[in-house]
Amino acid sequence: MAEITAKMVKELRDQTGAGMMNCKKALAEADGDFEKAIKHLREQGIASAAKKAGRTTSEGIIFSYIHPGDKLGVLVEINCETDFVARTDDFRTFAKDVAMQVAAADPKVVSREDVSAEMIAAERDVYQNQAKLEGKPEKIIDKIVDGKLEKFYAESCLLEQAFVKDTDRTITDLLTQTIAKIGENIKIRRFIRFRLGD
Amino acid sequence: MAEITAKMVKELRDQTGAGMMNCKKALAEADGDFEKAIKHLREQGIASAAKKAGRTTSEGIIFSYIHPGDKLGVLVEINCETDFVARTDDFRTFAKDVAMQVAAADPKVVSREDVSAEMIAAERDVYQNQAKLEGKPEKIIDKIVDGKLEKFYAESCLLEQAFVKDTDRTITDLLTQTIAKIGENIKIRRFIRFRLGD
Repeated sequence: MAEITAKMVKELRDQTGAGMMNCKKALAEADGDFEKAIKHLREQGIASAAKKAGRTTSEGIIFSYIHPGDKLGVLVEINCETDFVARTDDFRTFAKDVAMQVAAADPKVVSREDVSAEMIAAERDVYQNQAKLEGKPEKIIDKIVDGKLEKFYAESCLLEQAFVKDTDRTITDLLTQTIAKIGENIKIRRFIRFRLGD
Repeated sequence: MAEITAKMVKELRDQTGAGMMNCKKALAEADGDFEKAIKHLREQGIASAAKKAGRTTSEGIIFSYIHPGDKLGVLVEINCETDFVARTDDFRTFAKDVAMQVAAADPKVVSREDVSAEMIAAERDVYQNQAKLEGKPEKIIDKIVDGKLEKFYAESCLLEQAFVKDTDRTITDLLTQTIAKIGENIKIRRFIRFRLGD
């Protein structure tokens, strides 16, 4: 089996705009064959979906989900390129899935870019002190902290969370697949979650 | 007609817990007769409603309103004392009225206590400069600024806004009347308003 180098992954990313993990997986499945990997990404719609990610999204909908019992509610804004798509069932199903995800998994931000530098510093500080208190060797503490920070992102960032209705996929996967299906760029712009008494 | 003094108004407030304007009005209508004024407040349910205002509200509902077209949505948390009341139609009608009010009138905060000192200072500054630019005499500028600040509160604070479905009443009036009708303390805890692209 051919070795998949970081250089190869980068080249494929540059050509297709697809994510690193998708490129790595496509190359592995194509046994290092570049053309096959691109074909594979295209078939999955991932290459074209990623290319759409730069396009302006000024249309969309505001969608709400109220959990049975009326003690928990979510409001989301999902953007797309045209009002035509905003009215489709596929788009609305995606909006509903996102709103229910927010209700169930309580993310704090949409993506890791939305986590403030102060918040990251505070998290790192906690993890560092934890590792020290647990008597971990100094030289591996940075690695432990990085690992815990990744876990923090996976739990707090909506796009990195496992999709509650299908935990094999992340919300980013769901988003990419929806873009591929609908054929327009889509963005989860913002969300808010009210729980009674919070 | 009897003169209504500030002292009389204060005494009636202390006894009933009703608001200053309500007490003043009740005294004027009762021609200064204290017992009549109390009776009047009781009949309107205002005295007892005000007395309920101190009671703990840890139940309630999260309610959403999505404006037709799905480009504007509101999420509100309305609190009451018991889950029993939270399930009543009267309570839900109030929650819906509040959510539609937020959608239509775009308040910034629930009450004037929620306006930050910085925001007030910034508003005062603008009004002061406006008045100076318009060449208003120095000695009346403070009065002009106070007047404009009251107008700002009436527009920005949900509780002070005119109720869009009946502009003769404020949202505070609607709240007080709903408390009187339902017989439990009610609080508008928070709201959020998403408009597409905002």
